[in-house]
Amino acid sequence: MPHKKLKLADLAKLAGVSTSTASRALNDNPLIKKETRERVQKLAKEHNFSLNAAASRLRLQKTKVIAVLINLDSETEQSIDDPFLLKVVSDINLAVNRQGYELLLSNSFMAGTDWYGYFIDGRRADGVIVVGQGKQQALIDKAAKAGMPLVVWGDPKTDADYVVVGSDNFLGGELAAEHLIDKGSKNPMFLGDPAHAELSERYGGFCAGAERAGVTATQLLKIDITSQAAYDAINHKLRNDGLDFDGIFACSDMVALGAMKALKERYVSIPNDVHVVGFDDIAMADISFPSLTTIRQDTRQAGELLVKKLLAQLSGQKVSSSQLEIALIERQSS
Amino acid sequence: MPHKKLKLADLAKLAGVSTSTASRALNDNPLIKKETRERVQKLAKEHNFSLNAAASRLRLQKTKVIAVLINLDSETEQSIDDPFLLKVVSDINLAVNRQGYELLLSNSFMAGTDWYGYFIDGRRADGVIVVGQGKQQALIDKAAKAGMPLVVWGDPKTDADYVVVGSDNFLGGELAAEHLIDKGSKNPMFLGDPAHAELSERYGGFCAGAERAGVTATQLLKIDITSQAAYDAINHKLRNDGLDFDGIFACSDMVALGAMKALKERYVSIPNDVHVVGFDDIAMADISFPSLTTIRQDTRQAGELLVKKLLAQLSGQKVSSSQLEIALIERQSS
Repeated sequence: MPHKKLKLADLAKLAGVSTSTASRALNDNPLIKKETRERVQKLAKEHNFSLNAAASRLRLQKTKVIAVLINLDSETEQSIDDPFLLKVVSDINLAVNRQGYELLLSNSFMAGTDWYGYFIDGRRADGVIVVGQGKQQALIDKAAKAGMPLVVWGDPKTDADYVVVGSDNFLGGELAAEHLIDKGSKNPMFLGDPAHAELSERYGGFCAGAERAGVTATQLLKIDITSQAAYDAINHKLRNDGLDFDGIFACSDMVALGAMKALKERYVSIPNDVHVVGFDDIAMADISFPSLTTIRQDTRQAGELLVKKLLAQLSGQKVSSSQLEIALIERQSS
Repeated sequence: MPHKKLKLADLAKLAGVSTSTASRALNDNPLIKKETRERVQKLAKEHNFSLNAAASRLRLQKTKVIAVLINLDSETEQSIDDPFLLKVVSDINLAVNRQGYELLLSNSFMAGTDWYGYFIDGRRADGVIVVGQGKQQALIDKAAKAGMPLVVWGDPKTDADYVVVGSDNFLGGELAAEHLIDKGSKNPMFLGDPAHAELSERYGGFCAGAERAGVTATQLLKIDITSQAAYDAINHKLRNDGLDFDGIFACSDMVALGAMKALKERYVSIPNDVHVVGFDDIAMADISFPSLTTIRQDTRQAGELLVKKLLAQLSGQKVSSSQLEIALIERQSS
């Protein structure tokens, strides 16, 4: 039997570290603790291990691939099927193609917890765009600290060491509240769960905008960010409380469309009885009847900015977070 | 200055062939004409060219990536934003992940005309799933003939050398026609362009089903497969011909939703004045009001089958095309 050559994975196992840590330790990467580097290098010497030069060289070539990692909370029923998420991915894809790159669709299940090892050492991509901060901010932080080229679609007000691109969610909430009250709503309601970073901003803006417009008491109906949850919640509320609201600011268009379906089925007139404003401006906002007034997120521009900032990182430039402008699109529902 | 080593691309240029052809010629691949193989091999000898052994070895390793190539006709306004296309991609992604692979989102613009060279020689993916046959059947044929592991989402009745997975579109058309007439429609209309392979099947089934149910004269309104086109066409028709139809079989749900919006804006009652049936069963079919009766395409099963058949090809098995069962989902619009 031929003598089996020690692989990087075997060496990593011996040293009790991940393969990416082992690889970086052998390359004397200062991100790895000195003790670890010395331990791995000593073990490599003892076992006559040498990094495969050809593989190393190839590793330096660009993959010309950008990975998009969809990072959903485990508590939500929202899925990659969600039209807004798909719109974001599709606009990132356009921007990625425009730069001569291709998009690898990934998720936190595939990538595990060592994103650097998975994407960069694994030569799956040159950099990663994370869509949604979810509850895994620690993993994003870890990957950014490991030197992974990384940008995040999320709440641009996040106090973090990584770069975030996202909408001005607070202003969006303010505009929605002011518009509802301007249209005659005296009892506006927020439909969504402020536990989520971006939705918390939207809710904060909604309360601030309502108060400035003279409405101090607003309702909050906490629901998951799906149209089914909105449909169920509005049905439940109409049965139990009756129609004690005359305006809805939904945290997303899908949520707004689910709420509108429940209202229409009970012959509540939109916008005469209830004014409705959504968030996102997905294709269905325009096609629904009545068409949906909404706060447009500029996903086309977001895709371009995310890719531009990632490529700037790849070429060694320092980049910072950006906040996108949003706009209220008035249609029939308000 | 050091002597510059001849690269594969340089050799290919000298021989006047693509790099993938050059690579396969050097490997004595029988898919390449004997004269070409000999010419390339002779040139390689003359220039002291040798295939990089390390790169070759790495090339044999699996990328664990499956590429999805979105193949849209250039004449359509339908885009990757289309909710049904995104649903197909997202269900393929789930199936790909379940097999421990990742999905590379590509398109015919990125891939150019030499798909084998781009995906396989370029080590971008182990195999390709083409979504939509478009007008580029010749390119699909070429890639399949070059030995590229390949499956296609499209019309499973296609007479081709490659493997296609798709719905029984003809039966879907029959079911739609019979259902409309069963609900009282005497003047059903097909909304869509039969020039497209899958839509031609749906239209054929629609005419056959109508005739069997005793309606020999049906209308055909040729439009692009977008909700905007449907909205415009129905508005135009109502202005010009009045309401001379009482049933619509739309070639997609997006088309049905666009048509319904035009009808609702003109106070045409759905389903009392016009019964509407769509095709696909996207999320919005259930959320629209009235909710949309439709022919469901089982994209979840399609994703699983496409990936299963591709992986079977990768492990050297012979696979054949499959037709998926469809089902009529009755909702409020009919």
